[in-house]
Amino acid sequence: MTTLSTRQFRLAARPVGLPKSSDWAFTTEPVREPGEGEVLVKVLYLSLDPAMRGWMNEGRSYIAPVGIGEVMRAGGAGRVIASCDPAFEPGDHVVGRPGVQDYAVLAGGELTKVDTSFAPLPVHLGTLGMPGITAYFGLLDVGRPQTGQTVVVSGAAGAVGSVVGQIARIQGCRAIDIAGGADKCRYLVDELGFDGAVDYKNEDVRKALRRLCPAGMDVYFDNVGGDILDQCLANLAPRARVVICGAISQYNNTAPAKGPSNYMSLLVNRARMEGFVVFDYAARYQEALRAISGWMADGTLNSREDIVDGLETFPATLLKLYKGENLGKLVLRVAEV
Amino acid sequence: MTTLSTRQFRLAARPVGLPKSSDWAFTTEPVREPGEGEVLVKVLYLSLDPAMRGWMNEGRSYIAPVGIGEVMRAGGAGRVIASCDPAFEPGDHVVGRPGVQDYAVLAGGELTKVDTSFAPLPVHLGTLGMPGITAYFGLLDVGRPQTGQTVVVSGAAGAVGSVVGQIARIQGCRAIDIAGGADKCRYLVDELGFDGAVDYKNEDVRKALRRLCPAGMDVYFDNVGGDILDQCLANLAPRARVVICGAISQYNNTAPAKGPSNYMSLLVNRARMEGFVVFDYAARYQEALRAISGWMADGTLNSREDIVDGLETFPATLLKLYKGENLGKLVLRVAEV
Repeated sequence: MTTLSTRQFRLAARPVGLPKSSDWAFTTEPVREPGEGEVLVKVLYLSLDPAMRGWMNEGRSYIAPVGIGEVMRAGGAGRVIASCDPAFEPGDHVVGRPGVQDYAVLAGGELTKVDTSFAPLPVHLGTLGMPGITAYFGLLDVGRPQTGQTVVVSGAAGAVGSVVGQIARIQGCRAIDIAGGADKCRYLVDELGFDGAVDYKNEDVRKALRRLCPAGMDVYFDNVGGDILDQCLANLAPRARVVICGAISQYNNTAPAKGPSNYMSLLVNRARMEGFVVFDYAARYQEALRAISGWMADGTLNSREDIVDGLETFPATLLKLYKGENLGKLVLRVAEV
Repeated sequence: MTTLSTRQFRLAARPVGLPKSSDWAFTTEPVREPGEGEVLVKVLYLSLDPAMRGWMNEGRSYIAPVGIGEVMRAGGAGRVIASCDPAFEPGDHVVGRPGVQDYAVLAGGELTKVDTSFAPLPVHLGTLGMPGITAYFGLLDVGRPQTGQTVVVSGAAGAVGSVVGQIARIQGCRAIDIAGGADKCRYLVDELGFDGAVDYKNEDVRKALRRLCPAGMDVYFDNVGGDILDQCLANLAPRARVVICGAISQYNNTAPAKGPSNYMSLLVNRARMEGFVVFDYAARYQEALRAISGWMADGTLNSREDIVDGLETFPATLLKLYKGENLGKLVLRVAEV
């Protein structure tokens, strides 16, 4: 076996605000051979997620931070090159958490084989991956929308938000998106079938919500936090559920996060705000994937990926998330095959 | 029947910040005779509640605002003087919502007879009134504490908070109070049996909570909002419930309320923050009163009232609430008998 080498982005410093190039070290090292139970994977696609910014901070969260000097954590999909786990053989396509690099040696138990005949690999990082599963359980288990109710989702053009809105529609709800820019809003309404759109970059969010949700919103699925969360709290329906999935507007703050001033609307409306972490649903991932695959197969749920080429572009490509420049699931293509 | 006259505090202006004397008009008018189905009540005690400040603001809430020029809304207890409702006769003791005045003509259907042989009238405005019922449903229905869990309550020396902590103890929970001043904290621990106290005026709340709740708090019952809510959010246990009952620290703000910066702790801890309004439980008030009466009868739940004399002291006495000067239910004694 020829010795392979892997390029890697390692965390060099904890960022203050948006991550800058000096927060990363771009290194190369030889790839070690897999040991008993391990699998050598050639990374083809990496998943870029808003939550990655949180993993770069020190301190307790729902997952340990990435240590200084460590390869940056990232989900990804690839092809098995060599396997010392009988469950995998060379050529298998798998998803897992290889980190930001060309090759990874991973425990077989942490990999999942995927069927690329149903959907190409990048879809397994988005709609058929963690973002889709997050949308499914966050909306249905935490948000609990009822037929005919109004569901509002922010970050609606992103990997999670676009699936939330479509599942809401499938459940017989009105789905309203909040997204930045006319192109995203047009895509969500015209191509994904949302019932209404709020372009937060070009209109007064509060007025638009009042117009689109005259009886208030029954479910608000929050991916962004900040002012948009506050405006949504001001427009809740009685007994509304606010699902806290993320707060991308706050992740690069250098000051403490802005708390939602209008939280007393929870009292006035007998409403609830609840957080969740998708990993808690691990035992039910297959339920979500079966449902989402079925909706994709019958054409009621569409998936879109925003694919950028080149491992070396990772630091700049990651920033697209925080600048709101992606439409659909942001994926880094590391290799063609 | 001699013509009676009633002194009244009417709302003269919408306060900015703490209500000042010019926000009130102190008027006197003759008392009209009760019509069909009405009852004339001599007010003996008035209930002073933190929520009264909210009723003085313009704008939508869970209850309509008091109009300029109207007699200030207030719960109270009194004695029936004359009745055109066959359900009541002179001498009956009743509770209802007479407003801040000496006499009130009220619809019989809005009055409840109370048994003063079990507990004196002021108790029926506190532990056996709305505050007790609020504590009961807010803790048990919204907070849902389990035996052995840790319940933290702020505003713990007030009418609601002191009952919340005692019910938590009765349910087999550890009860921790947050209150202002050593006297209140000593009273709550030594006389009411709380398991621990945080004196927010004299110690670092966050450190004290870490010491008293090393595994985090399972239920936080919030009466105060502001910084204390934020500190509690930073110390939640997994799957914690935060009950939003009030936000007395924010009611006299002239700037927008401070939102809880640490709300993302709801995500990290898969926790929930939920508001409620006691009026929604009207069909179940008797259930709460039976339980609380039983605990009072067997000595497991104590009630304390902070009684101030004189209708004319209303504007100044109301401020005791917002300055944290009351210990137990704040009641204004309007007349002796």
